[in-house]
Amino acid sequence: MRILGIDPGYAIMGWGIVDYKGNKFTPVAYGAITTEAHTPPEQRLMKIYDELTEILQKYEPEEASIEEIFFNSNTTTAIMVGEARGIALLACVQNDVSIAEYTPLQIKQSLVGYGRAEKKQVQSMVKTILGLDKVPKPDDTADALAAAVCHAHSRQSRIYR
Amino acid sequence: MRILGIDPGYAIMGWGIVDYKGNKFTPVAYGAITTEAHTPPEQRLMKIYDELTEILQKYEPEEASIEEIFFNSNTTTAIMVGEARGIALLACVQNDVSIAEYTPLQIKQSLVGYGRAEKKQVQSMVKTILGLDKVPKPDDTADALAAAVCHAHSRQSRIYR
Repeated sequence: MRILGIDPGYAIMGWGIVDYKGNKFTPVAYGAITTEAHTPPEQRLMKIYDELTEILQKYEPEEASIEEIFFNSNTTTAIMVGEARGIALLACVQNDVSIAEYTPLQIKQSLVGYGRAEKKQVQSMVKTILGLDKVPKPDDTADALAAAVCHAHSRQSRIYR
Repeated sequence: MRILGIDPGYAIMGWGIVDYKGNKFTPVAYGAITTEAHTPPEQRLMKIYDELTEILQKYEPEEASIEEIFFNSNTTTAIMVGEARGIALLACVQNDVSIAEYTPLQIKQSLVGYGRAEKKQVQSMVKTILGLDKVPKPDDTADALAAAVCHAHSRQSRIYR
């Protein structure tokens, strides 16, 4: 099973692809799509769409895992991140990649074992689980890989429940 | 000048196309893209994308006018509407349609003459300016046409200022 994890964002959209077979993870590719602040919004969204579509077509993941986003107060930021997130969902569905959504709490629970884990603990577990030399940078990339790992665990628990 | 107005939304996305020449408006086509609540989000976004792309390719507007969205408190709704809005921006830029954004206040100001106008006054002005028999329904369609009219006024004022 090849899974694409996505950490949705406007300036930085983290992504990471992992293979999961027989309880073993293999990292395939990961990175971040970045857009410049002083560019028209629609140009930034098109860059996200084009690059994510390229990733989807190059690595052909079977399923995608995307973090649900929450904001306490700043609705302007929420709308912007929503725009980028919508683009990610569209690119996946256009490439026949089914999408699962997880809350930050579910992702932490899945990787570290409890939902209130620190961000650094999650990133450290990403490194360990995927057998990487160091924590992937930027944080958005590590978070995207965490979402992919969470989905692998969650699929398995569904199958064996 | 052919202008596409968009009132972004997830369940209902209003749209309206007007021609504007020599201070005269001609309504070309208008309607609403609707998506079902109990459908996966990515399927709803793809429907919005596909239908809006079809509209863009059929009527070939030169410019688009889209309402900026604001929310006082509900960030979950803000994220969802943001997703739909991102899809609309992407469809426009992919079809080489330049995009202008206006606040609700600017749109009211442009149509009725003052920014605190009632929604009904704006809709009534849409009907009058476009020479329609009745106010277009749903409200989202009337709002999309209002955005298109606002952009026509604004372009002109830029030219003659």
